[in-house]
Amino acid sequence: MILFQDQIVEKSSIHISPDDRGYNFGDGVYEMFRVYKGELFAKEAHFARLIRTAEAVQIQLPYSIELLEEKLNSLLQVEKIIEGTVYLQITRGAAPRAHAFPLKSEPVVYAHCNEVKRPVHIMKQGITVKIVADIRWLRCDLKTLNLLPNVLAKQEALDAGADEAILHRDGLVTECSLSNVMMVKDGVLHTHPANNLILHGVTRAIVLALARELELPILEEPFTLDALRSADEVFITGTTVEVTPVVAIDQQKVADGVIGPITERLQEAFELKFLS
Amino acid sequence: MILFQDQIVEKSSIHISPDDRGYNFGDGVYEMFRVYKGELFAKEAHFARLIRTAEAVQIQLPYSIELLEEKLNSLLQVEKIIEGTVYLQITRGAAPRAHAFPLKSEPVVYAHCNEVKRPVHIMKQGITVKIVADIRWLRCDLKTLNLLPNVLAKQEALDAGADEAILHRDGLVTECSLSNVMMVKDGVLHTHPANNLILHGVTRAIVLALARELELPILEEPFTLDALRSADEVFITGTTVEVTPVVAIDQQKVADGVIGPITERLQEAFELKFLS
Repeated sequence: MILFQDQIVEKSSIHISPDDRGYNFGDGVYEMFRVYKGELFAKEAHFARLIRTAEAVQIQLPYSIELLEEKLNSLLQVEKIIEGTVYLQITRGAAPRAHAFPLKSEPVVYAHCNEVKRPVHIMKQGITVKIVADIRWLRCDLKTLNLLPNVLAKQEALDAGADEAILHRDGLVTECSLSNVMMVKDGVLHTHPANNLILHGVTRAIVLALARELELPILEEPFTLDALRSADEVFITGTTVEVTPVVAIDQQKVADGVIGPITERLQEAFELKFLS
Repeated sequence: MILFQDQIVEKSSIHISPDDRGYNFGDGVYEMFRVYKGELFAKEAHFARLIRTAEAVQIQLPYSIELLEEKLNSLLQVEKIIEGTVYLQITRGAAPRAHAFPLKSEPVVYAHCNEVKRPVHIMKQGITVKIVADIRWLRCDLKTLNLLPNVLAKQEALDAGADEAILHRDGLVTECSLSNVMMVKDGVLHTHPANNLILHGVTRAIVLALARELELPILEEPFTLDALRSADEVFITGTTVEVTPVVAIDQQKVADGVIGPITERLQEAFELKFLS
């Protein structure tokens, strides 16, 4: 079952117009929620970002966040999801194709959920990454359906035998194809500031808050590819990956090529705070 | 009627999956053809660009260009379009949502056509534009469904009471939200080079070829907003707008605020060559 507008229905029963602006322009916004213990995790942050992105692209949410949350919870119950994800997208709706906003169109809400276990093995073992140029637009802070550059970056990493892409703009590290990236050097946690060049990840913010609680020094400034390559630890943060170490960059080991101590402390703090 | 895959069918009869990657990622390519006298105009250039974009994003066209052309012509005949447009898009198809290319997905072809008269009045009277920052990705040469920045630029222009947006990147003019832009200064035709920062418009190439036939000097180099504002003539080129003068920029007249002589000569040359 899926959520379509405000109804929980069979996926096969819904009708998506070929003139839906989501389909012709990527004219829509989305969120990916984590589900732990049958509940939407960090829902306030996700809903706040949804509202912010929708306002920025001037898509009117068709009904209240309260009702949306209720519907997503109903979907989780119907699908009996205990540990998983909920994907939600809202497009501007169908209208005869023209770039300008249509005078009248009804936004289209679509959400589905999946069982997704925590990637505990990968979170210990780590992932490998490929450095890829960040060619995205200048509003990467907006979580919209214009995701082709992310798709191409992810695929380029996979084609090179890596798990994820770390993106850089003119030699400065921004984030990954679908996660944020942080590094540790001499005990300091470095990550790109939450400006227009990166998505303001919910897990990124959670991890920074945990780091503050652990009294780790934090520097939210862009850092270079050279700095990344000489880091003591590198890890990515994201809704499904949580805190996952990066153990090799372009086939070169990060430090010793195993998970680092601060990465482990942040993983433990995350588990202790949210999952115990 | 519309074209769906290789069939001409009623629009209401088709099924677009909510998991079509066009719908979730803007993961698809498109073309907008002009129809004059019941025939696809400049079809070779449009098909060549379609092939080039599809190759760049690694979408396999589901059948031959010959068959595609045949189907589009059938659609035109069924719909009795003499003067109009054909919109064609091809997405990577439906698959469970994940950024990486799916191992198996069937590309989805969708095309529809409309009667659209030549905007002869506007082509004489001219349009007004607003200057808008170009925040798009760095592969603007690819005609993909990631069009949200174009949508937002067009809307920003309309909201300011203008007809179109002229985009600039760091003060250098690139193109418009859905057309290319050229200017004339001291008898020289200026336009941005066909690199990764602009769409390589079919009409842009046609107009440059006409200018060469007319022995007009051409400079394909980026030019500044200041140069644009002090131009003798400014015009846009595009599939439906052909050659349309810009008579005001940010509410300031371009030269005398009427169509210029070189713009008129290019319009006449276009009509003489293709429409007489």
